[in-house]
Amino acid sequence: MLNWVDGIPADALSVKDRGLAYGDGLFETIAVRSGRAPLLSRHLHRLSDGCQRLGISCDLAMLDAELQRFAAAVGDGVAKFIVTRGDGQRGYAPTTTEQPRRLLQSSAFPTYPPEHAAQGVRLFPCQTRLAEQPLLAGMKHLNRLEQVLARAEWQDAEHGEGLMRDTSGRVIEGVFSNLFLVKDGVLLTADLSRCGVAGVMRAELLERAVSRSISCQVRDIEYAELLAADELFLCNSLFGIWPVRALASRDWPVGPLTRKLQGIIRDLGY
Amino acid sequence: MLNWVDGIPADALSVKDRGLAYGDGLFETIAVRSGRAPLLSRHLHRLSDGCQRLGISCDLAMLDAELQRFAAAVGDGVAKFIVTRGDGQRGYAPTTTEQPRRLLQSSAFPTYPPEHAAQGVRLFPCQTRLAEQPLLAGMKHLNRLEQVLARAEWQDAEHGEGLMRDTSGRVIEGVFSNLFLVKDGVLLTADLSRCGVAGVMRAELLERAVSRSISCQVRDIEYAELLAADELFLCNSLFGIWPVRALASRDWPVGPLTRKLQGIIRDLGY
Repeated sequence: MLNWVDGIPADALSVKDRGLAYGDGLFETIAVRSGRAPLLSRHLHRLSDGCQRLGISCDLAMLDAELQRFAAAVGDGVAKFIVTRGDGQRGYAPTTTEQPRRLLQSSAFPTYPPEHAAQGVRLFPCQTRLAEQPLLAGMKHLNRLEQVLARAEWQDAEHGEGLMRDTSGRVIEGVFSNLFLVKDGVLLTADLSRCGVAGVMRAELLERAVSRSISCQVRDIEYAELLAADELFLCNSLFGIWPVRALASRDWPVGPLTRKLQGIIRDLGY
Repeated sequence: MLNWVDGIPADALSVKDRGLAYGDGLFETIAVRSGRAPLLSRHLHRLSDGCQRLGISCDLAMLDAELQRFAAAVGDGVAKFIVTRGDGQRGYAPTTTEQPRRLLQSSAFPTYPPEHAAQGVRLFPCQTRLAEQPLLAGMKHLNRLEQVLARAEWQDAEHGEGLMRDTSGRVIEGVFSNLFLVKDGVLLTADLSRCGVAGVMRAELLERAVSRSISCQVRDIEYAELLAADELFLCNSLFGIWPVRALASRDWPVGPLTRKLQGIIRDLGY
């Protein structure tokens, strides 16, 4: 396992880092195959967008080069890229003179049960709701206690993911993935302008679906619509697409559009 | 300046710490005078409560002893105490086998302008709203991006603090302090069951006020009530009490109950 801090192998960082103090930073979890990251440009785009929204300076070309160098060193596995605002003094105020810090961490590619992609997963209905905060919505920032609490709600292997709703009850996403519905041939995913993480695989799927003339909608989704969906699936950039086969007392077969979309991303290595 | 990690002088921590990865931990900012922390038991109580809510194991007697040892080494200044869930593997799921990590950091006592306590401060009306998340409300956890964004809204020295409201518009607190109103002789502060940090000075003031037969109410506060208040003040455990003398176009004189309460906490060193 490799760990780099600011481009150099290191296992530790300063106790003064604002990423620790306030979660003042962002991260990306990136699939690396044969030394390359297939969705790298989407990861970098989201990271750069998040830095801009948080007012963290970001040299995109440098991040790109460093990530490519790291991916080559990793070979096959997962590269986690953290960018923080850097060391701070006491107090919340950013000074605009901080030097952002970059952390890269590799891990083995997770070994998911093959039946998750083949037959689908059962979704755990999380009690933890996502708070509505438009200023942070969509970003993959380091304030992730809601996900920690939600993921701690189930330990059994029977549930492959958890469903997260917002505090108003709308359907938003999985704990570590995005959620899509299919209804009458239309592909639906939640609007993430109040909360949620705008996943790179979600973006990739929307683009590929639209280019294949599949109707797509990004909008608010009520819980009743979820239960009435024809197909349901989860996606992220590590596992690709998992059909959802059950939630509470509702069961779904793996649907045709879900299978089609699994095929559509096969060239990316999923 | 002193930095301890797990009770030992150190300036760095593991890159695998979940405090960095997810803000998975809590902190306390503690005033230290002559080697002692006057409000230590309140800080420890809040920290312990937060650990329990997040499912982080916490040996209160050990934290207490370590904090007292650190305060003695600091003498006069500020002790920041961070407790994280400790190192983690990839993924949000806590394993329950993590070893919580303790970080102690000292800094000089902040030098606030003396007129803040004497004549009061002007309050900046922050646009950043606090999201409503009952599961995290009241805790001083490490997910503090809302405070970072709010504190970045003003740079001028004219404003001593910022006012934070929740996404429904209710009055909650300052960016780094709690807020009290006085109306018709009653001391009012916001209910923090949806969002906000339950400050130790807020708790101390409520207890001391009640024991002096001052009527106190903890409840939802609308913005119109704030503007109609007779007196307004901020408090935290570093600066004690600052009267609010202005917000937007409204001005307040320093009121008699505010002055009385400043006197009531003088024995604590404020």
